[in-house]
Amino acid sequence: MADKEKETKNEPKTDLQKSKEKAKLQREDTLERLVVLGEHLIKQINDGQNPNISIPVRGSRNVEFDTVNKKIVLGGKVAHRYFFNVAHARRFMQTLLVASYAKKDLLEGNLTATLRDLYYAKKHTIPGTKENTIEEQKESDLAIVDLEVALDTFRERLHLRAEPKGRMAGDMVIQDRVRDKIDTIDLSHMGSGGWAVPSIVEQVEFKDLDAEYVLVAEKNAVFDRLNEDEYWAKNKCLIMTTAGQAARGARRLLQRLSQELNLPVYALTDADPYGFYIYSTMKYGSMALAHESDRLGCPAMKFLGMSISDIEHYNLRDVTIKAKDIDIKRAEEIKQYDWFKSKPWQAELNKFLEKKLKAEIQALSSKNLQYISNTYLPDKIKSQDFLP
Amino acid sequence: MADKEKETKNEPKTDLQKSKEKAKLQREDTLERLVVLGEHLIKQINDGQNPNISIPVRGSRNVEFDTVNKKIVLGGKVAHRYFFNVAHARRFMQTLLVASYAKKDLLEGNLTATLRDLYYAKKHTIPGTKENTIEEQKESDLAIVDLEVALDTFRERLHLRAEPKGRMAGDMVIQDRVRDKIDTIDLSHMGSGGWAVPSIVEQVEFKDLDAEYVLVAEKNAVFDRLNEDEYWAKNKCLIMTTAGQAARGARRLLQRLSQELNLPVYALTDADPYGFYIYSTMKYGSMALAHESDRLGCPAMKFLGMSISDIEHYNLRDVTIKAKDIDIKRAEEIKQYDWFKSKPWQAELNKFLEKKLKAEIQALSSKNLQYISNTYLPDKIKSQDFLP
Repeated sequence: MADKEKETKNEPKTDLQKSKEKAKLQREDTLERLVVLGEHLIKQINDGQNPNISIPVRGSRNVEFDTVNKKIVLGGKVAHRYFFNVAHARRFMQTLLVASYAKKDLLEGNLTATLRDLYYAKKHTIPGTKENTIEEQKESDLAIVDLEVALDTFRERLHLRAEPKGRMAGDMVIQDRVRDKIDTIDLSHMGSGGWAVPSIVEQVEFKDLDAEYVLVAEKNAVFDRLNEDEYWAKNKCLIMTTAGQAARGARRLLQRLSQELNLPVYALTDADPYGFYIYSTMKYGSMALAHESDRLGCPAMKFLGMSISDIEHYNLRDVTIKAKDIDIKRAEEIKQYDWFKSKPWQAELNKFLEKKLKAEIQALSSKNLQYISNTYLPDKIKSQDFLP
Repeated sequence: MADKEKETKNEPKTDLQKSKEKAKLQREDTLERLVVLGEHLIKQINDGQNPNISIPVRGSRNVEFDTVNKKIVLGGKVAHRYFFNVAHARRFMQTLLVASYAKKDLLEGNLTATLRDLYYAKKHTIPGTKENTIEEQKESDLAIVDLEVALDTFRERLHLRAEPKGRMAGDMVIQDRVRDKIDTIDLSHMGSGGWAVPSIVEQVEFKDLDAEYVLVAEKNAVFDRLNEDEYWAKNKCLIMTTAGQAARGARRLLQRLSQELNLPVYALTDADPYGFYIYSTMKYGSMALAHESDRLGCPAMKFLGMSISDIEHYNLRDVTIKAKDIDIKRAEEIKQYDWFKSKPWQAELNKFLEKKLKAEIQALSSKNLQYISNTYLPDKIKSQDFLP
């Protein structure tokens, strides 16, 4: 019997066991942070103090650009939220409602939920009053961000899902787990659809890889074009579409591909300020989610295109679109951002402001449908013609 | 040698061969329709006639509800578009530009493209004039629909892709093909993401199936909930999300699951006129795409929920939302549609108009997160509590 036990102990762990243990450790770590917060509040109450939570200040007045690590981060300003303070009490209560839901319903129950689920679960009329705990979802959403920064964690670790978006294909095998089922997914056999990138990717493990870089396109249409042209097989890369502004799951996955697998990541957007901004959010993070750049940013990402310079270089003048006032305004804004202050980006933005023309990536289809796969991309990658 | 040839002939065809042959036959059929159209025009020109194309009239004045087959269809009105007619000439030219692109670039090249690609490819200034062939994409989009109805075909057969949307999981193996690569995809091993439903599903083949019905949810969040709860495995079904209004690929796939596999299809949307409309579009088609109902409709689909009656039945009053004027207006509109004229739907819409309350599917999360998987869905399916 003793022998048998020993044998069992020495057996190598299965992927499922490893995956569940990793997730359990993460859950326990987050639960511990929630418990520490709770005990801190109880101590304050027992000590006769006004219960309060320290919450790093968010918003532009406490956002900085970390030029060394290339990411948008929160500065050092911290605010205290007090229970006995007319201006704070409501949000204080909401923050604790969110904390209690994350602890009891999500982490202890080992379930995930959306921000909307949480809103519905915690919205109720406070007994004996006509006051609702939460009126609009944006209130509980803000309380979630408060809790994230107060605990120095992120919402996926609180088991909160965001809207998933994005598809992926290429020569890589991954493992993904749902409860006790571990799936081995070969991204080179996903047909014309691709694998749908989930909203939480913490449990995804990268297995066999035969790819040299990642190409991430803002548009579904580009993914479909590249997939139909067998671009990823012919050029040994992984392709992903974010289907617009990148969702959290897609951003986190790109970061992990960059950092864990050391793969270069090249971004493909339209040649307009909106496309440039989508790129900068994937690379540096955003001001609204500055506390998440560590986890969602991909500082090594490069901008492959489409650039305003490409319009001339590839003779696309006839298929450009006249910039609208809102595009001009947006370009002038992002020109002031610290993370667009490099010479090449300033030159690029000046060129846009001078020509007042933008171009969509599909403008390349005016040459021929496969121009992007056969000429534009190989050309840009060979000459390493990227913006930082 | 003769023997060997014979042997080769008798060898069973591989799935790849079969798939490619089927696609080739479809391409040839569509090409033939295009050729017939072209020859018809040449004959008219040679006969000294004013070249014209017969195009079934679209829009509400030629839309009917086929109560027997339960679909929204085009009526019998046909218009003629003439080349020598100041009001027709531009659209006539655009329709032929689209036809030429579909023939030469897409079908003969065996490539697919988006409506946007087509727009960029065919937009140019007519030599010797200052006139552009196409100004705005909506012009070429309308010309595509003209061509679809004139040829009695649909855009996927012209190799035009729409924006893909939707994810799927369940106990079914499918085959999907991209050029010479045929992928066998096990939808029961797609992890937490699921398989991304492509924009064209004509080439998808259903293989092993171990499911008894299809559950299609309007919302990603519901898909994630059901997937995490292993709902599809425990209840032997396939789950799909359309992520909002259903895209063409998702609609066609639902139709094929219903008609080819004889699977019941149950729809899950929010309890509001917008949700009801999403359902009716999947089931009956829409007025704007009445010519496509044959191909995109799913007349056997049933509405599982969430209904206005569910609000009372499941005691959800506290988590309802007050209907806005626009919701009331929409409910009054759809109440007049022939395809909402059944008694149960009229009663449902009257209940909505009387209570002026709507509810989201996530309102069920106010009970507990798994209420939808453990109680609501099994309950509704067991009692077959559906709307037609």
